[in-house]
Amino acid sequence: MAFKVGLLGLGTVGAGTAEILLNPAQRHPLLQDIEIHRVGVRSLDKPRSISLPTEILTTDLESIVSDPAIDIIVEVIGGLEPARSLILKAIEHGKHVVTANKAAIARYGDEIFTAANQAGVYVLLEAAVAGGIPVIEPLKQSLCANRIQALMGIVNGTTNYILTRMQTEGSDFELVLADAQRLGYAEADPTADVDGLDAADKVAILASLAFGGRIKLAEVYCEGIRKISAADITYADRLGFVIKLLATAKRDTQTAPDSDRLQVRVHPTLLPKSHPLASVNGVYNAILIQGEPVGQVMFFGPGAGSGPTASAVVADILNIAAILKVGRDAILRADGTPLLDPLLACSHQEYCTIAPIEQLSTRFYVRFLAKDSPGVIGNLGTCFGNHNVSIESVVQIGMREKLAEIVVITHDVCEGNFRQALKEIETFEAITSIPSVLRVLGTED
Amino acid sequence: MAFKVGLLGLGTVGAGTAEILLNPAQRHPLLQDIEIHRVGVRSLDKPRSISLPTEILTTDLESIVSDPAIDIIVEVIGGLEPARSLILKAIEHGKHVVTANKAAIARYGDEIFTAANQAGVYVLLEAAVAGGIPVIEPLKQSLCANRIQALMGIVNGTTNYILTRMQTEGSDFELVLADAQRLGYAEADPTADVDGLDAADKVAILASLAFGGRIKLAEVYCEGIRKISAADITYADRLGFVIKLLATAKRDTQTAPDSDRLQVRVHPTLLPKSHPLASVNGVYNAILIQGEPVGQVMFFGPGAGSGPTASAVVADILNIAAILKVGRDAILRADGTPLLDPLLACSHQEYCTIAPIEQLSTRFYVRFLAKDSPGVIGNLGTCFGNHNVSIESVVQIGMREKLAEIVVITHDVCEGNFRQALKEIETFEAITSIPSVLRVLGTED
Repeated sequence: MAFKVGLLGLGTVGAGTAEILLNPAQRHPLLQDIEIHRVGVRSLDKPRSISLPTEILTTDLESIVSDPAIDIIVEVIGGLEPARSLILKAIEHGKHVVTANKAAIARYGDEIFTAANQAGVYVLLEAAVAGGIPVIEPLKQSLCANRIQALMGIVNGTTNYILTRMQTEGSDFELVLADAQRLGYAEADPTADVDGLDAADKVAILASLAFGGRIKLAEVYCEGIRKISAADITYADRLGFVIKLLATAKRDTQTAPDSDRLQVRVHPTLLPKSHPLASVNGVYNAILIQGEPVGQVMFFGPGAGSGPTASAVVADILNIAAILKVGRDAILRADGTPLLDPLLACSHQEYCTIAPIEQLSTRFYVRFLAKDSPGVIGNLGTCFGNHNVSIESVVQIGMREKLAEIVVITHDVCEGNFRQALKEIETFEAITSIPSVLRVLGTED
Repeated sequence: MAFKVGLLGLGTVGAGTAEILLNPAQRHPLLQDIEIHRVGVRSLDKPRSISLPTEILTTDLESIVSDPAIDIIVEVIGGLEPARSLILKAIEHGKHVVTANKAAIARYGDEIFTAANQAGVYVLLEAAVAGGIPVIEPLKQSLCANRIQALMGIVNGTTNYILTRMQTEGSDFELVLADAQRLGYAEADPTADVDGLDAADKVAILASLAFGGRIKLAEVYCEGIRKISAADITYADRLGFVIKLLATAKRDTQTAPDSDRLQVRVHPTLLPKSHPLASVNGVYNAILIQGEPVGQVMFFGPGAGSGPTASAVVADILNIAAILKVGRDAILRADGTPLLDPLLACSHQEYCTIAPIEQLSTRFYVRFLAKDSPGVIGNLGTCFGNHNVSIESVVQIGMREKLAEIVVITHDVCEGNFRQALKEIETFEAITSIPSVLRVLGTED
């Protein structure tokens, strides 16, 4: 009994996937039951690193998703369209789907999973988050007994590579970005990575799994790393922190300990150097999950690349094949479609409530440039105090172009209050500018 | 449709398991389909922290494993007998089994999985290795597309706690052990932990999953931490290493790159401080898996304790419930028993070939006490050279009771050659004693 795969895309991940499927030795024996039936490509003439029979290649992707012989569609073309339409059409034709497409799932997950549930097919997406690191399946299966409290991760390799190099070389963002682009670690248009959009897609997917509800991507607060300067990295270092682009999803326990309201956000964060995520460097990814009763578990590994991503894609193919092998049509629902495995299928239909960022309580790092006049630190302190913003430390950290550089770190404070204080401070005659405002991992996070 | 669980044991892990099953709110909705039907205990009169209806408690464990109403038996009594017999009897009665019993699985896995395969039932054991850290299921499912090359882990919390305290306090083994016993981190009889036997059970289970074959526990080389002294920890530190009890299973690529022969071993190991496992401290566990094409992934978290272990037990219960829910009797084999999911069931029947420790190539750390006479370092070097043992460094690291303390670190050398050289060196007039011989993580590991 062979299960037939229709592969949409033969780029980096597609070629990596085909490579594994064509070389089953020393891997799980179930791989021998998988056959690449057809492969959809943009051009038939492009030279390829892997050898596939030319007759299975086609540029007609629509014909693959409707091919009656195919059991599983693997979508690795990426982007929003035609990926979304092809996935939906595959589902309509009763195919199971494996995808690495975080952008399409984060935006159209609602539509895609509703269709999949109606048709009684699986849509698996281990490869969409953190490349080769098992995190989707552990959340669905291994940690399913837990009440998840929080998850926090470094889920974008490009920004982590840039921040790591800024940290080790003392260079500024623009310089390192240009070099990363030259070396192929960043795209020509780096927006999705450096502005945090890719991380936002991923944390929306993770939050949905961890908290059992759908997430509106527009409600995920998102701030990228463009404004991080070499100076901030140096000062953070002196104060015992490293700066990472952190994706966070947690129960908003500020309102109630068992709250169903969530915080879901992506922003640069000062992490204490002893924090397990602080030493995750370069293109590596890591995700920390806090659950009750498991406590803290962390998953670490390569977050991108052909091999790691293909490892996740093929794992999903095999997981579907394993279900098919024991008879997926076993128990039918009233409408004649198969009942889905409740751990592997997406069962939730409600949307999660997400707390607006202004209502959150966070620690802040803020850097001021001020005229070196006596009393400026006192004025800052008084103003923050008037807005109920409690301060942990104020340090005049150096001089820059004859201006005093002052760094304030707050305790956990209400973002709204903090922003109001900042607005007032901006009008102080002694304050020349506020070059950076960053969040600091709270003691309770 | 409710699935009925028979729980054998209501100790730390059993009570943690019941606690989750009785409090399903904010966990996976499938938990609401699980019912604790009967609980086997040693004494009915013992006061318990959790409240269960008294009529479901019994001291007759045999009656639970044969109870026709029960779908899933959860064995958390530990130890070899009656655990083994109860598991086998449960299988005979067509029950699925969830166990946290590494000792029974490492010794009787052969018998247990053969019986389970014949009966068409699952035996799941996420809780048997590394407590709450998902590692069994990721190996079976999320990483199943990979050709696993090596796995390496800190899988015993007690020894890691002891080594961490020796490292931070500079104390000797016996002192820290006594204190760990007082604090409940080590058992009154600490043999299974400190002699590496518990870690050997766990690495045998992991190796079996990673390399798809059965493992003879007697062939797993095992060395504990009793002989580690404060001096070794200090010298290792000065040379840039920390000492950890490492469990390793890897393809023995010394013979051939695609070798099916394995190295499976547990021993204290000097790890470079920059190694990802070097910073895993206290009772935490971590497992590093190297696969092709995924690269290196690491799983980190609490390796023991009621909550974390129960998290893994209940995940296994839910995984079985999910299969039952979609109809496990779907496809029957010729003998009328259900076909098992090829990723979740144990499909291999062959034994793995394990390389004898004498044939391995490893780096060594060896500490000599010698009379402070000129030429002794030369003599050591010559003797090692004569036995083809290539040396990386020789350092006279200090003086102890008027004797010179010399530490040698070798390159990767054949263990057999190294042992022969040591035998010859023992006879040197200048060498008073060889207090420690430890392995060092090889550059290629």
